[in-house]
Order: sequence, then structure tokens, then C-alpha cells
Amino acid sequence: MPDTILYVCTTCRGANDASEPRAGARLLAALREAAGPAGPRIEGVECLSVCKRPCTVAVASEGRWTYVYGDLDPAESARTILEGIGLYAETPDGIVPWKARPEAFRKGVVARIPPLNQNLPDAAE
Amino acid sequence: MPDTILYVCTTCRGANDASEPRAGARLLAALREAAGPAGPRIEGVECLSVCKRPCTVAVASEGRWTYVYGDLDPAESARTILEGIGLYAETPDGIVPWKARPEAFRKGVVARIPPLNQNLPDAAE
Repeated sequence: MPDTILYVCTTCRGANDASEPRAGARLLAALREAAGPAGPRIEGVECLSVCKRPCTVAVASEGRWTYVYGDLDPAESARTILEGIGLYAETPDGIVPWKARPEAFRKGVVARIPPLNQNLPDAAE
Repeated sequence: MPDTILYVCTTCRGANDASEPRAGARLLAALREAAGPAGPRIEGVECLSVCKRPCTVAVASEGRWTYVYGDLDPAESARTILEGIGLYAETPDGIVPWKARPEAFRKGVVARIPPLNQNLPDAAE
């Protein structure tokens, strides 16, 4: 199976939250701590351009759809995100059935992008 | 240079617009007409999950950042989108300087995602 990569925006601030480190950086740290050595590859990114819906992550993998999620709580969402990424990593195309997705992913979806160089399947959301 | 692919959500409806074909399908047709044979590869997609900000497109290319844009007018934006995609296709990494981007892209940006399998450059927005 191809690697799954979890991108975490480290530039995101919470609403009315000027604290340092920023909410996005705190979420990145929480994800790394919760993931452990068997978890997905996790990379901090300087801005995913979803500034209106912090905190923000994206999950991508060669040959799978990419998903972007926002409105994530930096203190509470690490385990939920990792559960959702785990479901994603078990699929052939990255499309987890809607009802199986964590609620934070259903409510927080920002965008999805097809895999490059693939014939697009019938993949309505 | 790797292919640039322009994905166009064909499921998008305009606000208070129940007409058929849908706004997204009309934007796809307008883009194909405006692009001509030398244009980018253009693919219709059944939902990019940006339902709150129709119409929506994404631009992607092997080794470059992916960008997602919303709030695009189905009747008026085809040429602007193609101009923006042309600038993208001229860059090594997909990052067009902010001031050079069409206003519709600056205002309509929904998300960006790093290229897979690359060392992330210093790429603040």
C-alpha cells in the first residue's frame, strides 16, 4: 500500500487565540504524540490556505483522493483525525463511506481532489 | 513539463439556481470552449466537496502544489481561470506569486496541498 501522508497546517490560529505556539503547531504536536511509530507520515505545512476554518489538515496518498478538513480542535481532535486517516489508509481509492467517517470529517470537509493520472471512477459524495 | 490538470466540479449549483445543466457543468463547457486544443487537460469531477462555495475548480500537476478555488462565476470566469492556470503551468512548483494571481483566485482560494513525495520548500502564502 502506498504511504499515507497527513499534512498539518502549522500557521492556523484558533478564533480569538493569539497564543504561541499557534493552534496548528499544537495540533501537529498532539498528532505526533498520539500517532506513535506505527502511525501515518505526518508533516507540518506552512499554510494550507484554509485560513477561514482553522485548524486544518489534509490527507493524501499516491493513487488516492486527497481530502482537506478544517474546523478541527487543536486539543481534542488528534485521536479522531488518526482514526479517520486509518480508515482512509485501508481503502483502495481514499474514499471512506460517508457514514463511516468521523463526524469531525463529515462536518469539517473543505475539499477533495482526485488522484492524478487515474481514470475517474464514479465517486459521488 | 508535467501535465497540468484542471478539475471542474460538475455538481455545483449556483446560489438560488435550480437550472439545468448545473452551474458547474456550464462552467466546464465554457472552459472547454475557451481553452482550445493548446489548453490544459480539463476534467469534470462529480463533487469536489466545496459545496458551500460554488462554482469550484482544482488545479494539480505532478510535483507541484494543488490549489482549489471556489466562488467562481460559471458564465464569466472561464478566461480568468485559464489565465491563472497558465501562470501556474509556467512555475516549477505551482506557486504563482500572490500579486500575479487573478483576483478571482486570491479571493476564491479554498485550499492548497503540497506535492506528494517532495521535500517541502519554504512556501509561505
